[in-house]
Amino acid sequence: MGLIDKRLAEIGIVLPKPAQPVATYVPWVKTGNLVYISGQGAVKDGKIEYIGKVGDTLSLEDAIASARLTGINIISHLRDACGGDLDRVKRVVKLLGLVNCTPTFGDHPKVINGASDLMVEVFGDKGRHARSAVGAPSLPFGLSVEVEAIVEIE
Amino acid sequence: MGLIDKRLAEIGIVLPKPAQPVATYVPWVKTGNLVYISGQGAVKDGKIEYIGKVGDTLSLEDAIASARLTGINIISHLRDACGGDLDRVKRVVKLLGLVNCTPTFGDHPKVINGASDLMVEVFGDKGRHARSAVGAPSLPFGLSVEVEAIVEIE
Amino acid sequence: MGLIDKRLAEIGIVLPKPAQPVATYVPWVKTGNLVYISGQGAVKDGKIEYIGKVGDTLSLEDAIASARLTGINIISHLRDACGGDLDRVKRVVKLLGLVNCTPTFGDHPKVINGASDLMVEVFGDKGRHARSAVGAPSLPFGLSVEVEAIVEIE
Repeated sequence: MGLIDKRLAEIGIVLPKPAQPVATYVPWVKTGNLVYISGQGAVKDGKIEYIGKVGDTLSLEDAIASARLTGINIISHLRDACGGDLDRVKRVVKLLGLVNCTPTFGDHPKVINGASDLMVEVFGDKGRHARSAVGAPSLPFGLSVEVEAIVEIE
Repeated sequence: MGLIDKRLAEIGIVLPKPAQPVATYVPWVKTGNLVYISGQGAVKDGKIEYIGKVGDTLSLEDAIASARLTGINIISHLRDACGGDLDRVKRVVKLLGLVNCTPTFGDHPKVINGASDLMVEVFGDKGRHARSAVGAPSLPFGLSVEVEAIVEIE
Repeated sequence: MGLIDKRLAEIGIVLPKPAQPVATYVPWVKTGNLVYISGQGAVKDGKIEYIGKVGDTLSLEDAIASARLTGINIISHLRDACGGDLDRVKRVVKLLGLVNCTPTFGDHPKVINGASDLMVEVFGDKGRHARSAVGAPSLPFGLSVEVEAIVEIE
């Protein structure tokens, strides 16, 4: 059991089996030392959680929880990309987080913090990343949050 | 004639002369083995095709065709970045696809499949990429789809 | 005083002290020779300038100025990533520019040119980058423009 696996257990996170994409792409691609992880959402046991538009049909709290669950799914794919050993993660390089929200919403950073905080909680300083948090008028299947990631591994 | 050129001919795709950007940027930049290709749209013979908003003024079928034509323009720039030899493509690493759509639209993956399927059709397993598909309230000049790409070449 | 510092002085740009993120992420991450800079906005002296939605409450001219100020903040973080020496910049690789705008807006390229033109003004041919310019229904705190960057340094 690796250090990151222990950390996940400590904070009570059980990584799901990585979900397969709904189209002709793949969950991640490794090039050099960088892993590019496809845009993820708050899917749990094959079902989308926290569907809705922030500022309209979904609360800020639920949106943050949506981003956290999205982050868990990112880590699930990342573990797969690491051949099962998350201790190979050298640095979470960048997240791009999109929030399904209204034209007057302004708290995108708070929402995407649900994923960002998780990265630091799990990977410590290696989890500190560059980031953009922006709005989208709609996301696939009504997802409230979509996050893609670039991670450097050893 | 390279293997990929033969494949393009087989599936009836004639790559256009790469279009020049409408601003002070360039169509692609190569750094290390990675080529970053600027956001493309469904432009043909200097004219934008499939203008409109999916879920409102444009059908799903036209949006998929828009994404496919956008993918052809990406490959056109990629060929230029490869010095004309598309056999140098090692892996399509990542696509980011934006769909000009309404706040209630949810089929972004189906739309962007127009570009993703093309990559696999042309490059086979080397065309399998990480991807995000998201919504945008509007895109330049009324484009229905915009896709940017990162490709590893030899 | 480096060449780029001289160039900045010539065109009258004083780089601000890099602003700290409003969340649990960092302004930039370096991996290999690439610096990933977090999404920036038109912040000056800790205050957001040019708040609003282009095509509605903000003019095109103000949006372009917003993108230029955003570009200055990107260069400010980039200088930090270069250990203070902007002459280490080898190539601005890519910008992703998001415009807070209405569903009928179409001049995203003109807006993001505010940042793109600045890169070429400051870094010359090394400032020529790949780029995507797209719309967003809303951005953090009412920002009119958000731009993230990837830069190759020596």
